[in-house]
Amino acid sequence: MSSTVGQVILCKAAVAWEAGKPLVIEEVEVAPPQKMGVHLKILFTSLCHTNVYFWEAMGQNPVLPGYLNYVIMYCGECWGRCDRSSIRGHLLPVFIGECKECAHCKLEESNMCDLLRINTDTVTRVGCVAKINPPAPLDKVCVLSCGISTAKKFGVTEFVNPKECKKPVQEVIAEMTDGGIDRSVECNVNIDATISAFECGHDGWVVDVLVGVLHKDAVFKTHPVNLLNERTLKGTFFGNYKPRSDLPSVVEKYKDNVGFVCPTLAYMC
Amino acid sequence: MSSTVGQVILCKAAVAWEAGKPLVIEEVEVAPPQKMGVHLKILFTSLCHTNVYFWEAMGQNPVLPGYLNYVIMYCGECWGRCDRSSIRGHLLPVFIGECKECAHCKLEESNMCDLLRINTDTVTRVGCVAKINPPAPLDKVCVLSCGISTAKKFGVTEFVNPKECKKPVQEVIAEMTDGGIDRSVECNVNIDATISAFECGHDGWVVDVLVGVLHKDAVFKTHPVNLLNERTLKGTFFGNYKPRSDLPSVVEKYKDNVGFVCPTLAYMC
Repeated sequence: MSSTVGQVILCKAAVAWEAGKPLVIEEVEVAPPQKMGVHLKILFTSLCHTNVYFWEAMGQNPVLPGYLNYVIMYCGECWGRCDRSSIRGHLLPVFIGECKECAHCKLEESNMCDLLRINTDTVTRVGCVAKINPPAPLDKVCVLSCGISTAKKFGVTEFVNPKECKKPVQEVIAEMTDGGIDRSVECNVNIDATISAFECGHDGWVVDVLVGVLHKDAVFKTHPVNLLNERTLKGTFFGNYKPRSDLPSVVEKYKDNVGFVCPTLAYMC
Repeated sequence: MSSTVGQVILCKAAVAWEAGKPLVIEEVEVAPPQKMGVHLKILFTSLCHTNVYFWEAMGQNPVLPGYLNYVIMYCGECWGRCDRSSIRGHLLPVFIGECKECAHCKLEESNMCDLLRINTDTVTRVGCVAKINPPAPLDKVCVLSCGISTAKKFGVTEFVNPKECKKPVQEVIAEMTDGGIDRSVECNVNIDATISAFECGHDGWVVDVLVGVLHKDAVFKTHPVNLLNERTLKGTFFGNYKPRSDLPSVVEKYKDNVGFVCPTLAYMC
């Protein structure tokens, strides 16, 4: 690598030239790393649904033409800071950074799984509703808007298909769960599912977490009275994980083949 | 009082016969208290904005004809439970109860002021933006959608009038506050103010609390990306106060003339 320091290099890249058009594999010139930048040799990559949205020009900001594995990488004075001397071996590029200095990084809050008190070892029920294990009296269920095959893999045993319901799915789930769910994690990038996940929550204590990046024209709509009854709606970016502090333990869990269902983790890995 | 036990009594009442029509002062017959009920002699009463909404038939459910000071009293097996032997001296009727037995009452959460970590002694800035005192780095401001005269009374020194802004008020407030507010408490029963209070929050940590009961046709709308950046939107009913456990200390503060600004308290008293 030392021979290329400070020089333009040639790389093979899958280029997204236009919205929704096929990626084009071609050779591109890559400028030397600028301030706060670093060159990585990409060994493995994949596209998440957020990538696809930006590829389809449905994301919030235009990013084409570009390379999709870079699309979600956020660079700046704080985000994306990189201490070159600490780079050793394999890297896991993520789309947010952790400087340990700014207000964001100094927040005391832990990751979203901790906040939700989701015990990911006890996913035993409903899908898109799954049993969780927070403190009493919150011992019921959690909406997970993931595919049935994924849900089954993690032990989910009950499923509700909104298309087969004779009334709004939020009403069906509320009836199934004695008044509503206790926690929900919505990562389906579907605005109807997003609203349903919120509205099927139990009044008094539900916490609904939005993970998915939705269509640029999507609008979250609900009657304010749905909030008034002590409901909480939170959004999270990267599961509120601090990459440098929190990701190593996730990698260890993955290497140890410890299953976890939380979509905020699932979509990172 | 003992002579009326079990008997119909005559009372003077202000009756709301029709939506928006003037109240009619007349003599009415009041049935003896039923199960879970109690007769109170009302010495002082007032109408909150929620009363007025129901009077105007703009609330969620039709309640007319009726008595407005009863409109917001909620009765049932759990809510509104009353231990007659404990009734002594003056009472403070509220519209929710506390049985200390159900899931709602057993929640560990404290009242909304505690959750927001609002130190109500340190309201020194912007209105409708006021300085609060949560742990660092949350040392900025809080939107209080109350009237200017009320805000001034509690020490608020800066004001923003949305009608005088050349761009959306949430953008103006975000610029004033270095990226957005840290906490907001919205009790203005205006849907535009409700949405603005949420959207002017700082990404990463803002908590926006909705207190006001809005028009039955109001719709809360926002782009989901406004949630994604670690924003939290909560609703609260009665400030998440448990009346029997939490109200006595509020009454003591009132009697001791200790000022507090939190609208969730202000609108109860």
